[in-house]
Order: sequence, then C-alpha cells, then structure tokens
Amino acid sequence: MQNQTIVLASRPQGVPTAEQFRFETSETPRPAAGQVLLKTRYVSVDPYMRGRMSAAKSYVAPFEVGQPISGGVVAEVVESQNAAFPVGSTVVGNLPWQRYSLSDGQGLNRIPTDQAPVSYFLGVLGMPGLTAYFGLLDICQPKAGETVVVSGAAGAVGMVVGQLAKIQGCRVIGTAGSDEKVAYLKQLGFDEAINYKTANIAEALAAAAPAGIDCYFDNVGGAITDAVYDLLNKHARIALCGQISTYNATETPVGPRPEGKLLKTSARLQGFIVSDYYRRWPEGVQQLTEWYAQGKLQAEETITEGFDQIPAAFLGLFSGENTGKAIVKVA
Amino acid sequence: MQNQTIVLASRPQGVPTAEQFRFETSETPRPAAGQVLLKTRYVSVDPYMRGRMSAAKSYVAPFEVGQPISGGVVAEVVESQNAAFPVGSTVVGNLPWQRYSLSDGQGLNRIPTDQAPVSYFLGVLGMPGLTAYFGLLDICQPKAGETVVVSGAAGAVGMVVGQLAKIQGCRVIGTAGSDEKVAYLKQLGFDEAINYKTANIAEALAAAAPAGIDCYFDNVGGAITDAVYDLLNKHARIALCGQISTYNATETPVGPRPEGKLLKTSARLQGFIVSDYYRRWPEGVQQLTEWYAQGKLQAEETITEGFDQIPAAFLGLFSGENTGKAIVKVA
Repeated sequence: MQNQTIVLASRPQGVPTAEQFRFETSETPRPAAGQVLLKTRYVSVDPYMRGRMSAAKSYVAPFEVGQPISGGVVAEVVESQNAAFPVGSTVVGNLPWQRYSLSDGQGLNRIPTDQAPVSYFLGVLGMPGLTAYFGLLDICQPKAGETVVVSGAAGAVGMVVGQLAKIQGCRVIGTAGSDEKVAYLKQLGFDEAINYKTANIAEALAAAAPAGIDCYFDNVGGAITDAVYDLLNKHARIALCGQISTYNATETPVGPRPEGKLLKTSARLQGFIVSDYYRRWPEGVQQLTEWYAQGKLQAEETITEGFDQIPAAFLGLFSGENTGKAIVKVA
Repeated sequence: MQNQTIVLASRPQGVPTAEQFRFETSETPRPAAGQVLLKTRYVSVDPYMRGRMSAAKSYVAPFEVGQPISGGVVAEVVESQNAAFPVGSTVVGNLPWQRYSLSDGQGLNRIPTDQAPVSYFLGVLGMPGLTAYFGLLDICQPKAGETVVVSGAAGAVGMVVGQLAKIQGCRVIGTAGSDEKVAYLKQLGFDEAINYKTANIAEALAAAAPAGIDCYFDNVGGAITDAVYDLLNKHARIALCGQISTYNATETPVGPRPEGKLLKTSARLQGFIVSDYYRRWPEGVQQLTEWYAQGKLQAEETITEGFDQIPAAFLGLFSGENTGKAIVKVA
C-alpha cells in the first residue's frame, strides 16, 4: 500500500508558494505494539502554520526542511495494536500531512461521529473554536452591552468569536476582506460587518462603534488594528490571537506605536495561543458542543478536495479564499 | 496678603518651554465655612502633566488655557473653618500651583510629620510610589528569581519599582540617561543598570538579561521598549506606565510593530494609571511606609527651591535633570 507525505521543501521568503512543498511516496508502514495506523480523512490548514515554516523561534517549534509538515487532522483507525483506539474509530490530533500515519496514541483524541460532521472537530468544535472560546471569554471577558470588534471575522476563529460575543449579549462588529464575507457575517448575526478592502477602515469602525470599543479580538494586525486602537474605551481588553497581515512580511513591520493609546485607556493586551489553555480544553469543547447542539453556534467550512490540494488550500489562506474553516477532504 | 498662581498661558507644540507658563498675582482669599486656607510647601512636578497641557482627551482632563495648573502639593493649613483640618496640620492633595489655596477638604489627606520628610508623600510614599507598587505587584506580578526591567529607572516611579522588585527577590535591570544615574541605581541595589544614551541598548539588555525578561515596567517607550520586546520570555508581563520619550512628539510616533512579539510569547501588556487603583491606595501607602520604616525602601529627591522655579523644574523632567522625585520647595 503506497503512502504519500508532504514535506517542507524549502523555507519561504515572504509569501509562500507551491515550491515550498514536496510530495514523497513511500510504503505504508504497519503498526507495532501500542500503535495504530491512521487513514487521513480531513486536514486542517491554518494561518499559524506559516510561522512554523520559518526557522525563527516562536511558540511552536519550526517545521524542518525535508521533514513532513504537520497540523490538525481527522483520521480513521484502520489498523490497531492499541486497545484505546479500535479499528473504525475516528480521531483528531496533530499529525503529519500524510495519507497514512502511525501513532502511539499520544495526543490523539477519539471524537464522536454522531454529533456533528467530524471535520467540525478541526473548526468550530476544535482548535479554532477553542481559540475563540478562551481568547474571547477568558481574555476579553466581554460584558452584555459592550462593543466587541473581531478582525478576520469570517475566518475559522473569527466567525466563532463573533457568535460567542453575541451569546454574551454584546454588540459585535467584524472586519473581513470581501462583500460576500460581509454578507455572511450579517447572516451569522453580527451587528456590523466591514469590508476592509473597500471601506475607509477608521471611518467605518467609528461609525459602527459609536460607543467606542470595549473588546478587540485580533487575528489580523496592521491597519485594522491601528484603527481599533484609536477607538478603545477605558479598560478595553484586547486578545492578540493572530497577525496574518504581517506573517509574510520580509522586513520588520512598522506602524504607529500603540503604547500611548493603550496607556491612555488603561487597556490590557494579551497575546495567547490556544495551548496556553490546554488544561481547560475539555471545558471548552463541552461548552462549544453544547452551544452547537442548541443551535446557538453555526459552523462554516471551505472544503477543498484531494490530498494533492493541501498546499493550494494552505496558500489560499493568505489570499482570503476561505470563509470559515479551511479544510481539505482527503478520503 | 498677596497670592501667586501659575496658569497655562498656551498649549505647547512639541517640547514645552517657559512661554507656556504665566504668573498671576491676586489677593489671598479667606476660607468660608467648611474651607481651609493652605500654604503650599512642596510642589510635585511629574511627566504625566505634559499630557494635561495638550487639548487631546486622555485619562485626566486637560488643563485649560488661562487657568491654574494643578498637581500634587504638600501644604500646611494656615486658616481653618473645617474641623477635619486644624491649623498647623500638614496635608497632601491635588492643588493648584499657587502659594495659597482654598480647599473644602475634598481629596485632601492629612499626613504625619514624624515618619518621613513630608515631601516623601509626593514621592516614594505618594503617587509615584503607589504607581510603582500597583504597576509592579499587581500587573507584573514578579516572582522571585525572575528578571525585571524598568525603564526610566532613576525617576520617581522607576527607582521605587526597582527596589520593590528587589524586595520580591528578582533580578533587576534599570535603564537611565546618565552615568551618574547608573551609579545611583547600582547603589540602590539594582543588579544591572544601563545608560541608554551611551550603550547599544539591544546588546546591553541582552547581556544584562541572559535568561530573558519576565517583567517590564515601562516609563519611557520608544527604542528601549522595542529592545525589551525582543527579549521577552513566555508569559511576560508588561506594565505600561509612561511613554516620556513620545510625550513631546509633534507627529505620531512610529516604530516596529510589537504585536507579533507579544503574540509569540503570550505576553500581557497592561496600560494603567494609579487612579485605576484608588480604592487600594491605603493598602499601598501602608505597605510602602512599612518598607520605608524598615529601611528596605530608600527615597531620593531632586529639590528645586522657590515658587518661581516650578516651571523650570517641570521642564527639567524632559531633559532628565532629576534623579528620583522632582520636587519644588516653596516655603
């Protein structure tokens, strides 16, 4: 049985391209004692993976050139030497971009197949959902009636942030990069949505947030964030989750210094990664699943088909091709 | 009895000058029922007052052109129609830059005259001391063995921050603007002190903080802060207290965007002003007074003499003339 693996061929300078990825073929291995053989069903492509393609030290170790790229994967156990993961069970975990992978079960979680499409455990019920959950509820701590802004609002994390903020009774404003995404956000229940590519972002935000901004969940950075800083209310809270506008920069991004604005408003800005909260993941998954079951939380996916399309789906994140969670369906 | 008042003559563009201040003479008023007449003894000049000289909205209302400038003052009650403040008692409060002022007692606090020089209630036992106390202990929450950096370390707030961090068992690094200040910080017990005007700040900080930086108390902003961001440890805490390097800027200060660095380290940055903690001031004064009485906390003042020298003492803050608290002794 032939296996296929996607390895990092080279580190990108600036915007990554297809050249950074190489497909390798090998024999599919057999599980040893304690191991399972997993057949990849869904692969998650996420903006944070861009950081791992660079050699620079970050919160997750870099990918190594010549080694498999890895990330969130939903897979099915097809051979098992591990009683915790019988054949036929469905799991989610951090796994290589491979058609078939071996695992000793470390870091693997079984997921139910009767509650939601299993790919949702890579999105609204998985890492992006948990990122939204902890970043919004733990860091921003929005109160009913407050104004919450989320950038990258139509992305996998942002769409959950906005919905959670609505559940909390907030006024919710999202920014996104197309009129289609803006329409989608309105349909999701956002009070205001702004196409940052066509609007004057500072004016549009000021108009959308007449009472100022209490909470900001930032996935994007750059000019949108600059404009938010100008509208912060006293004691504003900022969850710094992503900076996709700068991930492909080849020089140090420069902008207006934010410190003076944060000082004047006694604002709090907290950088975070979802793994900071790993001890509380079960709480998060349980609450998200409950809201999903109650119809309070909608999912949205942009699904690309085919193992060979994984690099293209990843690259599409940086041109804004996805609405909601970007997923590759492999098998 | 002649009174003298310093009013804001005009708003500064960039660096303030003596032209912004005008001395006015009037009759000294008499206290009505409930009021006291205060004779100013010590006037505090502080960097934050620069912000109030501009019209821009900030955390404290701007000074008005043609109206008295006000700030921290230690005064003596010379006439009293208020039983809470008998003649001869010494008080601290936010009062106009006047030789004699009326007060109804609102916001006035009596201070002891037998525990410390009364001017210390404008410094180590007053607003700057409380700023250091809450910013360091509440926001930075330093743990023993951690590395704490404080910028503007030889100023009224910074010198207390460093001493409090030593009390907490931390490695303490201060930055200041002269070799004399550096020598003073070493004498105060700082582990390392850097003259940012002569050192390569990035290299000097990296050498002084081989284990990285866990806490940063920022009074200064700008290039020193940029260099600190590059050395943050995971879960670093930043208390954003002042940005004196930018207070006189005439254009929006621009610099490398910090968000990416704060994101990678899951750092927390909290802007604050001491009044955010006003409910806990008594706790702070009590603890600072105790440490002072125990000899764990030293004070340092740069005292200028004469009511007419108040503007010059204020302007001197921006050329780094003071070590420790800048005070004007009036009477």
